[in-house]
Amino acid sequence: MDYTVELREKGIAAKQAAQKLAVISTTVKNLALVNMAEALEENIRTILEANGLDLENGRAKGMSNALLDRLMLDSLRIKSMADGLREIAQLADPIGETLSGWRRPNGLEITKLRVPIGVIGIIYEARPNVTADAAGLCLKTGNAVILRGGSEAINSNLAVARLLAQAAEKTGIPAGAIQLLETTDRQAVNALLKLNQYLDVIIPRGGAGLIKTVLENSSVPVIETGTGVCHTFVDESADLAMAQAIAFNAKVSRPGVCNAMETLLVHKKVAERFLPMMLAQYRKAGVELRGCPQTMTYNSSVIPGSEDDWAAEFHDLILAVKVVESLDEALAHIAKYGTRHSEAIITTDYNNAKRFQQEVDAAAVYVNASTRFTDGFEFGFGAEIGISTQKLHARGPMGLEELTSVKYLINGNGQIR
Amino acid sequence: MDYTVELREKGIAAKQAAQKLAVISTTVKNLALVNMAEALEENIRTILEANGLDLENGRAKGMSNALLDRLMLDSLRIKSMADGLREIAQLADPIGETLSGWRRPNGLEITKLRVPIGVIGIIYEARPNVTADAAGLCLKTGNAVILRGGSEAINSNLAVARLLAQAAEKTGIPAGAIQLLETTDRQAVNALLKLNQYLDVIIPRGGAGLIKTVLENSSVPVIETGTGVCHTFVDESADLAMAQAIAFNAKVSRPGVCNAMETLLVHKKVAERFLPMMLAQYRKAGVELRGCPQTMTYNSSVIPGSEDDWAAEFHDLILAVKVVESLDEALAHIAKYGTRHSEAIITTDYNNAKRFQQEVDAAAVYVNASTRFTDGFEFGFGAEIGISTQKLHARGPMGLEELTSVKYLINGNGQIR
Repeated sequence: MDYTVELREKGIAAKQAAQKLAVISTTVKNLALVNMAEALEENIRTILEANGLDLENGRAKGMSNALLDRLMLDSLRIKSMADGLREIAQLADPIGETLSGWRRPNGLEITKLRVPIGVIGIIYEARPNVTADAAGLCLKTGNAVILRGGSEAINSNLAVARLLAQAAEKTGIPAGAIQLLETTDRQAVNALLKLNQYLDVIIPRGGAGLIKTVLENSSVPVIETGTGVCHTFVDESADLAMAQAIAFNAKVSRPGVCNAMETLLVHKKVAERFLPMMLAQYRKAGVELRGCPQTMTYNSSVIPGSEDDWAAEFHDLILAVKVVESLDEALAHIAKYGTRHSEAIITTDYNNAKRFQQEVDAAAVYVNASTRFTDGFEFGFGAEIGISTQKLHARGPMGLEELTSVKYLINGNGQIR
Repeated sequence: MDYTVELREKGIAAKQAAQKLAVISTTVKNLALVNMAEALEENIRTILEANGLDLENGRAKGMSNALLDRLMLDSLRIKSMADGLREIAQLADPIGETLSGWRRPNGLEITKLRVPIGVIGIIYEARPNVTADAAGLCLKTGNAVILRGGSEAINSNLAVARLLAQAAEKTGIPAGAIQLLETTDRQAVNALLKLNQYLDVIIPRGGAGLIKTVLENSSVPVIETGTGVCHTFVDESADLAMAQAIAFNAKVSRPGVCNAMETLLVHKKVAERFLPMMLAQYRKAGVELRGCPQTMTYNSSVIPGSEDDWAAEFHDLILAVKVVESLDEALAHIAKYGTRHSEAIITTDYNNAKRFQQEVDAAAVYVNASTRFTDGFEFGFGAEIGISTQKLHARGPMGLEELTSVKYLINGNGQIR
């Protein structure tokens, strides 16, 4: 099918579904989520067969082992997708909440109500679990979703999306609520980004390249997620044992994620006491170190850090390290190289803690804790659709509430102006 | 000056100013607003001279009288700009408000704080009063602003913006907080729309053409404002005297604004009792009527309504009128032709009122009141930067809160993950 036809058909179907979804009861949505989970578990073989095709194609194309691992499903991973859907069913439904209400002098009663956004486009890469995850979060919040996964995972995604859509429909969810683009034509993404008539928002989930493409080409509003060049600043007043534990955790616990630390900043007054032991611990854990000239004096394996390193999201066991003159220099460095994601100070000084939290412009600003906590689950949201690094609509971890909009209901008895 | 150089310089200055503005006290911001108001009033002659140049150029180019009137300033209009700034000074400062806060099981204390957005771009047309209005609202909310007004008003805008920036700076507001693009090169707008490095959001204020251009070309997040194809539906159970008063007000009180009604929908069961007197009243007020065949039977001056008329934002004393079979048909018509701005039902039926408010997808959904109330001042916000017709970030009238973002402060005592 020509992708423009497919996009139009799916857009219309999604918009019609969204209208109905907005008024469907929480009970039906939760039941659908549970049935969707069961459908995945009951059809593991179907999903694995489809996934096998994708893996075969991937191998034939010489896909790397890391990518093949992302693409690969097994019964455990499918079970985990199903469990994710059941957990979403357990969460409170944000739709219908009255956010505020007041009466105007002329008697008009105004109520601000939480409603679904409408139709959400999700563009993602080669992880088929995103299909179930995104479909579940959108359904719970009464939004129709149009999914566009990576072409490498097309068979897996189609299998999963069909099972989910069927199970949802059987439970009373309108057709068109969960749809996946079938075309793998690359032009289809660009066309999706211009589908303002049907889409209310697009959320890209993936690497920097994907996010950049979406941002630059979309006329549909976008929620930017992702890139995290996060810093930890060890202040001169820091408890150095605490600093060591946090700085180690922030880099090493999971280096491939966006809330991992990429650059360690250390106040010059504690550099000599702190860095030798810290750098040795990193080296033992296999961390490659790129440092400023002073950092290099504390460990012989540190290689010279370049301008590129200060700006890099390594996504790997690589760390940039810099000794700074002052809190001011740390703040300036973060303002220059940070991506407004997560930043931490380790300090025992009240004023420095306060200044850092006030002046650092980021979604999450920590005192004496690891940046790794920037996460919807760790924040207690019970779900996460991504971490927003923009300032409009949503900032930081996005849970169910971030997939909603508002609407004003105004009740009068004949008011005119 | 080459506009790319100007944009870069102003972008850098705005970003630096925004960092400082975020922590400036409410007292200083309010004092600056009052001083800005005074600066306008003390320099009326300077502003009028600049405005005179714009008017002269406009006349030479054959600008219409309506446009010349929009462009024209006099001492009353300048006084009103100044009063607007003083009113903004009186409003509560939303910045610094704690929106929520909680403690996690691991002891992390999370606080969600209201902060400025950062740098806001405002693109507008030939009304020089927007210069003062937008500058005031952005300053109050701690945002730096880059203004780009219509080239027809460049001299007026420059005069106003310079006076405002000087007065603000003298009061302790950082330089770069209020800037106006000096170039009138049309390419500069396109370049501004791609200035993601410096701008956090762009708000277009103007006609449909401007908004479309911005939406289609901006890679910076946009808040869409404006277009309102608003309906009033007279239900079969309506109090017809009330319906007449509201329907008249919604069209006639100020036909050129976005919350004015463009299409009147009438239930067939009351059409014969309601429409003859209603249409006669419109005709008396000089309203041109375009109707469905049945509407045409009630007044001889009604001309046939076309598909285009149902979708039109007339911005004028023109009204489309349609008789519908049922509430369902009214809902379907609104879903098809509405722009999600403001919609009203006139009814005495509880269930119909409820259904209308639940099912209509619009920023403001009225029962028994005029759509003309969709307005930041009428809602009690004390200010308005525009009316959002999108669903992300802000929906409906945007006051000061809609010019803010959030930030999470996380306080720990050594937590790692």
